[in-house]
Amino acid sequence: MKKQVPLNKAKWLVEPGCVVLVTSGTMQKPNVMTFSWQTPVNSADPCLILLAISHLRYSYDLIRQNRQLVINVPGQELLEQVHFIGQVSGRKIDKFKETGLTPIPAKTVEPPLIKECAGHLECKVVEIFKMQTHDLLICKVVRAEAEPELFAGRWIPEKFRTLHYLGGNKYGVLERTTEARGTNNGHGNSLTRVCL
Amino acid sequence: MKKQVPLNKAKWLVEPGCVVLVTSGTMQKPNVMTFSWQTPVNSADPCLILLAISHLRYSYDLIRQNRQLVINVPGQELLEQVHFIGQVSGRKIDKFKETGLTPIPAKTVEPPLIKECAGHLECKVVEIFKMQTHDLLICKVVRAEAEPELFAGRWIPEKFRTLHYLGGNKYGVLERTTEARGTNNGHGNSLTRVCL
Repeated sequence: MKKQVPLNKAKWLVEPGCVVLVTSGTMQKPNVMTFSWQTPVNSADPCLILLAISHLRYSYDLIRQNRQLVINVPGQELLEQVHFIGQVSGRKIDKFKETGLTPIPAKTVEPPLIKECAGHLECKVVEIFKMQTHDLLICKVVRAEAEPELFAGRWIPEKFRTLHYLGGNKYGVLERTTEARGTNNGHGNSLTRVCL
Repeated sequence: MKKQVPLNKAKWLVEPGCVVLVTSGTMQKPNVMTFSWQTPVNSADPCLILLAISHLRYSYDLIRQNRQLVINVPGQELLEQVHFIGQVSGRKIDKFKETGLTPIPAKTVEPPLIKECAGHLECKVVEIFKMQTHDLLICKVVRAEAEPELFAGRWIPEKFRTLHYLGGNKYGVLERTTEARGTNNGHGNSLTRVCL
């Protein structure tokens, strides 16, 4: 059973740069998109994740309505669903129905979690920076949870394999950890916080 | 020998979410930082990469001076250098000297390339969005190059293993490709461009 992740550890669900499934809308009328253009932009107090989203997306229409979304982290076993969701528009089909993925209620926002994913970030959009083709959504994480056997303050690639988009129908699979011998700063901080 | 990558393919050097080494300053006085808070924000015409950078960073002082930087992509063999560079500030030490990495002149910008990296994006900062602790630098890629044996319009994980930051001194290693059976859209487009 998934357990809540402290908000100051939430960004580690997406820091490795994995493909995610972003849900929008409501439990009654949800949509889901495959996404790899995201990055943390603040570690904690608050934890902020940026999504760069095309103006044309149906999901963006839904996000504009309640300014809420959920970032769900799929593993390799969801490869076919991830790719399919990346190829079709929710304007035309019900992607949950087509893929068999299961929407379940989030605790703090209207869009659903995807039951089959190993971690979830429930988010509220707190700021939008406008660009020509894409907007930058600054998303405040309000609740996070993950499978404790797969996420111990960080993903464990030997147990949970994230997908990383290479192009076309190809994805890289993260399945091995390596450790630098150099000193660990002990705080679990992001590189972007440590190195000046 | 590295070969030029067309600008409409440049974003594939960073799309998988790998750790990068960002160089700033000049050939005479360069700095380098380890970075994982980046994402493409426009595929082509122009290719734009966003970096979320802390106000406190020495590299940001340098970037403010000429509004130029280079995104270099290291492989697993540079793990110790990547981690060390992420732990120390260029205000205090010469990170090139300490790590033995080799700065070589870029073609279009003042900051150097890192010879030991497999790919490079020469960038000019075209817009800055201000945030409380980090700023969002919108970087236009003006020239890209990569090792043709390792990058064939996409990285080949079986030949070139990118690093993905997990936290502390731990990194995930991307070393295997998987392919979705579903139809490829044939354009090599980003998921974020395809799925609405």
